[in-house]
Amino acid sequence: MEFRLLDKINSPADIKSLNVRQLETLCEEIREYMIECCASNPGHLGASLGSVEIAVALHYVFNTPEDKIVWDVGHQAYAHKIITGRRELFKLNRKKDGLSGFPKMSESPYDSFGAGHASTSVSAALGLATAARLQGKDTKVVAVLGDGAFSGGLAYEGINNAGASGTDILVILNDNQIAIDENVGAMHNYLLKMSTSKTYNSMKNKIWGFLGNGWLRRSLQKAVISTKNYFFKHSTIFSGMGFRYFGIIDGNNIKDLVNTINRIKNLNGPKLLHVRTVKGKGYKPAEENQSIWHAPGKFDIETGERIRTEGAPLKYQNIFGRTIVKLAEKDSRIVGITPAMLSGGQLSDMMKAFPERTFDVGIAEEHAVTFSAGLAANGMIPFCNIYSSFLQRGFDQIIHDVALQDLKVIFTIDRAGLVGEDGATHQGAFDLAYLRIIPNLTEMAPIDEIEMQDMIYSATLDEYTGPISIRYPRGNCQGLELPEEFSKIEKGKAVRLTQGSEIAVLSIGTIGNQVKKALEMLGDDSSRVSHYNMRFLRPLDTTAVEQAASSHKVIITVEDGSVVGGLYSAVCETLADKNTMCSVIGLGIPDRFIEQGTVAQQLSECGIDAEGICKAIRYFF
Amino acid sequence: MEFRLLDKINSPADIKSLNVRQLETLCEEIREYMIECCASNPGHLGASLGSVEIAVALHYVFNTPEDKIVWDVGHQAYAHKIITGRRELFKLNRKKDGLSGFPKMSESPYDSFGAGHASTSVSAALGLATAARLQGKDTKVVAVLGDGAFSGGLAYEGINNAGASGTDILVILNDNQIAIDENVGAMHNYLLKMSTSKTYNSMKNKIWGFLGNGWLRRSLQKAVISTKNYFFKHSTIFSGMGFRYFGIIDGNNIKDLVNTINRIKNLNGPKLLHVRTVKGKGYKPAEENQSIWHAPGKFDIETGERIRTEGAPLKYQNIFGRTIVKLAEKDSRIVGITPAMLSGGQLSDMMKAFPERTFDVGIAEEHAVTFSAGLAANGMIPFCNIYSSFLQRGFDQIIHDVALQDLKVIFTIDRAGLVGEDGATHQGAFDLAYLRIIPNLTEMAPIDEIEMQDMIYSATLDEYTGPISIRYPRGNCQGLELPEEFSKIEKGKAVRLTQGSEIAVLSIGTIGNQVKKALEMLGDDSSRVSHYNMRFLRPLDTTAVEQAASSHKVIITVEDGSVVGGLYSAVCETLADKNTMCSVIGLGIPDRFIEQGTVAQQLSECGIDAEGICKAIRYFF
Repeated sequence: MEFRLLDKINSPADIKSLNVRQLETLCEEIREYMIECCASNPGHLGASLGSVEIAVALHYVFNTPEDKIVWDVGHQAYAHKIITGRRELFKLNRKKDGLSGFPKMSESPYDSFGAGHASTSVSAALGLATAARLQGKDTKVVAVLGDGAFSGGLAYEGINNAGASGTDILVILNDNQIAIDENVGAMHNYLLKMSTSKTYNSMKNKIWGFLGNGWLRRSLQKAVISTKNYFFKHSTIFSGMGFRYFGIIDGNNIKDLVNTINRIKNLNGPKLLHVRTVKGKGYKPAEENQSIWHAPGKFDIETGERIRTEGAPLKYQNIFGRTIVKLAEKDSRIVGITPAMLSGGQLSDMMKAFPERTFDVGIAEEHAVTFSAGLAANGMIPFCNIYSSFLQRGFDQIIHDVALQDLKVIFTIDRAGLVGEDGATHQGAFDLAYLRIIPNLTEMAPIDEIEMQDMIYSATLDEYTGPISIRYPRGNCQGLELPEEFSKIEKGKAVRLTQGSEIAVLSIGTIGNQVKKALEMLGDDSSRVSHYNMRFLRPLDTTAVEQAASSHKVIITVEDGSVVGGLYSAVCETLADKNTMCSVIGLGIPDRFIEQGTVAQQLSECGIDAEGICKAIRYFF
Repeated sequence: MEFRLLDKINSPADIKSLNVRQLETLCEEIREYMIECCASNPGHLGASLGSVEIAVALHYVFNTPEDKIVWDVGHQAYAHKIITGRRELFKLNRKKDGLSGFPKMSESPYDSFGAGHASTSVSAALGLATAARLQGKDTKVVAVLGDGAFSGGLAYEGINNAGASGTDILVILNDNQIAIDENVGAMHNYLLKMSTSKTYNSMKNKIWGFLGNGWLRRSLQKAVISTKNYFFKHSTIFSGMGFRYFGIIDGNNIKDLVNTINRIKNLNGPKLLHVRTVKGKGYKPAEENQSIWHAPGKFDIETGERIRTEGAPLKYQNIFGRTIVKLAEKDSRIVGITPAMLSGGQLSDMMKAFPERTFDVGIAEEHAVTFSAGLAANGMIPFCNIYSSFLQRGFDQIIHDVALQDLKVIFTIDRAGLVGEDGATHQGAFDLAYLRIIPNLTEMAPIDEIEMQDMIYSATLDEYTGPISIRYPRGNCQGLELPEEFSKIEKGKAVRLTQGSEIAVLSIGTIGNQVKKALEMLGDDSSRVSHYNMRFLRPLDTTAVEQAASSHKVIITVEDGSVVGGLYSAVCETLADKNTMCSVIGLGIPDRFIEQGTVAQQLSECGIDAEGICKAIRYFF
């Protein structure tokens, strides 16, 4: 790949001298480069294609890194990375020792604040701007917030405080009407109404379309810019919240963007510029199917065909989808809730089968949990389907709204354990530990897809009361044949899979399959090892733990969760007052954040792949 | 106390037959009763005085408990409790085995959903209403939300989803312009502007004041009720968010309330009725000083004088306030942040001394944390001052925005441990455990006020990097003389306070004073006990733990936090792979929710008062 302009852009300074025509070309080249890279090295292509012009315009207008850009979520920040000295490294996007897929402070001074989870940008930007003000610095701070992330309560809290504070910040509302799945919520409808309103369209056509590019257009801009609401005349929610509202402009038109930002950047106080962009912009297949092309995997650039492995086994997500549908067919109390992960978590199966009993609440994890609690308090059996690292957002709600009231909400926790390329922000490292401290909660994890569907089924039975969590990883199942009938899993009961006499390995969840592999690697020595599939962290099968302790010299716990606070802790606590002669060794995610890489690399790094477990066992022979 | 009407109200059915005049009298009697009860048995008087009419009107109009009322926070729900069969029990409000100070599902069928933390009501109500709809029931669901709680992101997420769903719910926005301290935020300003606008006031005066009570008034109501925005003509944020907006009406006028609610209750879809009430209504001292009378403690009804103990020792809150001010005087990087607990947490001292460096962000814990992270990312040293149970709301932000970026935010965690009368929702039971699993974080707790100011000081030193937490309880210090100079606390270092040889007691935080008392109770036997003040949970002083284990036969850990996951776990983990001969016994808050009572009663219930600790020690002699 060779690019006339892009190849010379080694920092934002290099774009300052370009003219508008050249900026347009640069944007095209960035897109082409991004598509080329992502075709062979998968990434979050869609959002970043849509926001190329925003990235270029901001670095063109502002004096980064002294001025600061905060990207919300960070899916949209690829162009930003490419023009801030990371063009070549972008080929290693999301790879071990390569680039993070998200903005990251330790990676570049141009990344003013890291991201990964949604809706943080306004609060962070307000903090950066307030610090600059207190230090007497004239730093400009910009937050780029997608409309999807705007359904998150944290974004509202940020807007509410920024609006009242009068602090100089600019929020770019990057409105593409889609997050990963179709956006939902009243705010979404509101924005949609704005962007399809007559006022907007007529203004857009009349002013931008017919005025040409000369002095008349510039003068008119100057004139209207001084009014509080630029283009969209009637008062907006944003002006109600203390922001000067500007928009809507075409966020894929570099010229309009640069002109507008230039004109509003020195206005005092909180400003919001509403721009409309097209997710997947510039690559036809991505524009046409935005949900799939959010993160398409590998693809053929020419044909737009996504490269998929034929005959791949079912994913754990599929097991969730088909099981909840089967259960919902028989029990009308069952409902499904997801905070914006409808297709990612495969609750889409339920949406197809029972749309009226399926709720995508948008990026709003707190609401997802409390809404589920409300459903449970009035006789329903809600499945709250959520990724492990995002459930951290609902921690208080699990305690205060669900567990304290002993309501039966079933949390099916997806992306538990190590998640691979998404890296540190998305690791499902903590749920085992943070759920273990919550009274009334039943916490389980299946070793494979059969146990998974049985656990989901069992959770719906009357003997399972109060909150219940079932965690499972992203990705492929074990390839087992699935029985048509479900079997009940006895609450709090572990299973001993193999019996030895020297070392007991206690595992929870699908990481147990790495233990199985480790035992295979041990060959004949495997007969010296007992393997317990614990299944439950709460209630822990203390009988099994004590039995393991009394008949082995060492217990090794294995979990794909933080070794602080999870299974290891639970086993240690159980044995502590027993004065047992058995040592306990904990294998798991260590007490630090694990960066991006493949899941296999991360398992190896944590010492919980088959090799690592095998080595730990051998050490105690 | 005898009341002509109130004494006959044993359930909402008993108010249905009353006429408007009688309802007014009933409201007066409820107020009188509430004031009498709270004068001798302290409670959250202010908000509940303001919302007597709302409670009476809702039970008068709706068919509770089939129809459902969800009270946000629950500070405003005393009248609701009194007229739903709990009149006599209200004398035991907030007492052990008496009433919870908050709505609680297990206490009464009229409490449709429990509360304590703010901003949950709309999400919960939407869940209840959605369940009813799916079950084909014509249940009416009402959420009563204070304007203070409306700054919480969860409330916005609830409104955003309810507005889009079209579900039949009624939100009563109880706007008294004050939470505990003065409300803040753009939404607050917006509501203030609405309620002081000419339109509102002229409408109010003209229509309600002069129309009398006859058919003309009723007809006019009927006429305007069909328009989308009732009284307040121009479009509101709420109508932008998909709600039919009604208001503003006087929420302390039972007649207007009943009439209005009756007229809108059968309208389809999400409705918001904006009412203006006076916090402390009907009791002059409370109306005049709303912040203090939020929860005034005991008082003299006649004089309005609050009964306070003379010469009481300083509270830990005072130590925080004076220490941060002293440090801020010398270091301009220090800033203070609180989510709506300015006076409760005593950050008010900082606000007085350095208003420009002090930020009350309103009820917005997520924002408080991420905003602090933004400040830290740009060179400031933020103290984020927050109650333990509310910090649960910021759990993801601590992980994702602070710890992952290794930013130095100092969390001063107030109301840690057992909190007494506020009960289960407010216990600071979990912070020790949930912070212990977060990489990069330093977690400490002082045993007394001298150590507390030294820890706060030490946290600001360069050798303390990354996130830091310092937890301390509500209430009085030990009464020690405070040195003027601060001393540095060495990171990760425990202190052995007494030396014995049989039993080692390891405590963290002010619960160590109960251990000291227990040792006094042991008399001469106390020489058999070593007492370690651990000071740090992260990094744990493993050398001290190992020393304790190798020179004693039993270790007893004592913490006023969940015994699952906290100090006990940390000590067990430390010793597990050592094959030590020492048993470890954990005393702490057990694996269940602890209800209201005095702190002394709760300590006793958990077995972590001096008697309980003494008993545990004696058991191992």
